[in-house]
Amino acid sequence: MKTQISGQAAADDAVLDRFYAVIPAGGTGTRLWPLSRAAAPKFLHDLTGSGSTLIRATYARLEPLCYGRTLVVTGKLHRQAVCAQLPELEDANLVLEPEPKDSAAAIGLAAAILHRRDPRIIMGSFAADQVITPAEDFQQAVREAVHTAAEGYIVTIGITPTHPATGFGYIRSAGALQVPGAPNAHAVAEFVEKPDEQVARGYLATGEYSWNAGMFVAPVDLLLKHLETNEPELFAGLTEIAEAWDTPERGAVMRRVWPGLPKTAIDYAVAEPAAAAGDVAMIPGSFSWDDVGDFAAIGRLNTASETSGLTVLGDGARVFAESATGVVVSDTKRVIALIGIDDVVVVDTPDALLVTTKEHAQKVKSAVEHLRASGDTDVL
Amino acid sequence: MKTQISGQAAADDAVLDRFYAVIPAGGTGTRLWPLSRAAAPKFLHDLTGSGSTLIRATYARLEPLCYGRTLVVTGKLHRQAVCAQLPELEDANLVLEPEPKDSAAAIGLAAAILHRRDPRIIMGSFAADQVITPAEDFQQAVREAVHTAAEGYIVTIGITPTHPATGFGYIRSAGALQVPGAPNAHAVAEFVEKPDEQVARGYLATGEYSWNAGMFVAPVDLLLKHLETNEPELFAGLTEIAEAWDTPERGAVMRRVWPGLPKTAIDYAVAEPAAAAGDVAMIPGSFSWDDVGDFAAIGRLNTASETSGLTVLGDGARVFAESATGVVVSDTKRVIALIGIDDVVVVDTPDALLVTTKEHAQKVKSAVEHLRASGDTDVL
Repeated sequence: MKTQISGQAAADDAVLDRFYAVIPAGGTGTRLWPLSRAAAPKFLHDLTGSGSTLIRATYARLEPLCYGRTLVVTGKLHRQAVCAQLPELEDANLVLEPEPKDSAAAIGLAAAILHRRDPRIIMGSFAADQVITPAEDFQQAVREAVHTAAEGYIVTIGITPTHPATGFGYIRSAGALQVPGAPNAHAVAEFVEKPDEQVARGYLATGEYSWNAGMFVAPVDLLLKHLETNEPELFAGLTEIAEAWDTPERGAVMRRVWPGLPKTAIDYAVAEPAAAAGDVAMIPGSFSWDDVGDFAAIGRLNTASETSGLTVLGDGARVFAESATGVVVSDTKRVIALIGIDDVVVVDTPDALLVTTKEHAQKVKSAVEHLRASGDTDVL
Repeated sequence: MKTQISGQAAADDAVLDRFYAVIPAGGTGTRLWPLSRAAAPKFLHDLTGSGSTLIRATYARLEPLCYGRTLVVTGKLHRQAVCAQLPELEDANLVLEPEPKDSAAAIGLAAAILHRRDPRIIMGSFAADQVITPAEDFQQAVREAVHTAAEGYIVTIGITPTHPATGFGYIRSAGALQVPGAPNAHAVAEFVEKPDEQVARGYLATGEYSWNAGMFVAPVDLLLKHLETNEPELFAGLTEIAEAWDTPERGAVMRRVWPGLPKTAIDYAVAEPAAAAGDVAMIPGSFSWDDVGDFAAIGRLNTASETSGLTVLGDGARVFAESATGVVVSDTKRVIALIGIDDVVVVDTPDALLVTTKEHAQKVKSAVEHLRASGDTDVL
């Protein structure tokens, strides 16, 4: 018995040693304007009152699995901020996009670079701006996903739904898979688009559906095989960049090739066709997960800083509240007085102020679109 | 007939030539924090969107009656701001209080200075921070008050109540007086304190009560006679300052005498005892009057700048509103986005932000008291 366990543990280690974390850090988090904006997107903020920015927390959550084998893909505008957050990150593991090209290019380039280094790598892709607790449950799900990926699957981590959300796509699972080290692995039947509420209720009733949080673990060769099939032009461009990546030509080839790459989402380029081919599996994630989609989420995620219904976020916030509930995010040193107002959302930044309610938090996006249309782009 | 009219007109002119306007400019307007504050009180703001500060509008409203015969009493902190607003004001007509001593000292000193210049002067006292329209109706009421004062009365201008307000004292009028040039003059029976709402309803039902807006017109000698009777110590001090006022000793005597003067309100020192002595009359003011007591008033007073229920005050305000009503006062160049919130009050200044509702506008005062108690005095 002892020998057998040791043998299993050694096999475990061998599989997990192939794991490499990829963190795509993009998006401006429009619904969190004016805190989150082009120059300071969501992942650069501490939205949970934990003392860490979301990207730092994402990195730290993956560290016990990858021991520094982490690659970050972000916009070149964020180089300095990301390096300040992740000082351990090697230069060769920071992919700076000269311009945004959607997720297939970002994640595909990471896969191509890693494949060039070692074609046996199993990569996991985890967005930089999600909030997950407890980290241990997440890490266990990723370990199962790595074991499942080693069997030749693209493995998504599906979030067990807590309510019939209409803001996420869903994953329909099929039968259980028999994978050593992954007792919860299931086959995936299909990915489905964001449903309306009635459809979402139906999904929850079946017990077969999970939220698609965009997290997946895959052997880089399998991921690239699907990318090559579905987006041959994109694949060719990414391969060209990857071949130059760990050479002095990196910058020149990136600048030459990147601007001409097609823009498409990893869902269309890889995940959905792979699911249709029976190459996708799913590990259910029963941890608590939040994509911090709006300021109402900040109220939910900061129960620690809540005083009688009012959540206050921000170093040095000077808030006086009387008969007031809701969320205050202070990015200034100004005194903020709230009097006789419920479920309010106040976001105070040096050049822009938002006042809304938790109920209307999702509408912040349309305000940003209006400001862009009216030319007030200095505050976006 | 012609001669008689001319004679009457000449008599009119002679009486009106004795008129001198006094503008006490004090108080911080705590209920309008953080716009109004110790360093920038209410009277220094344009709260009606007219393009004029309240003190400038007050001066301009009196100008057709007094032709520059205007004396302003304010705190020495406001010297520069008041001079910028009233560049016409002669130095000898600007009384700067080294420290606040309540209204009896402020108005009494104005009376004493004017009495020293010409004992026949009839002064009118009008606070610097009230909003009155139309100016012509106000001026006509003041003309009647001057004629009535010339007959030996302290004449208050009573505001015809529009609702059973509980924030003002009331004036109970008695029978009509027969005064040439003042067809609306009435005797005053008594001044009464701020009532509760039920009592106020009773007052309105009788038709005998007006709001006491603190506006009065009086011969300076009569005013000083009552002051001497009721506050002999204050009278003596003010007389000493007045004797030095138009001499090189002004500053030295002011600095020596003022700090020791007793603090009391003109209501107790003059108006109420004079009413008891039968020396007070009243001219009803049927003009529209507002003391801009809170931010809800700013919504009422700025109908011109209102767009679909939202009043925006402030040069260079950059406000984006979607399904939002209420009042926005912008004292910065920041973008302010309001989404899905009704009857909100947002006051945005460089160092302090207030978010409340019209309904709670009166509670701003308690927020200021709390901030003072907690030591946040830098923003008061």
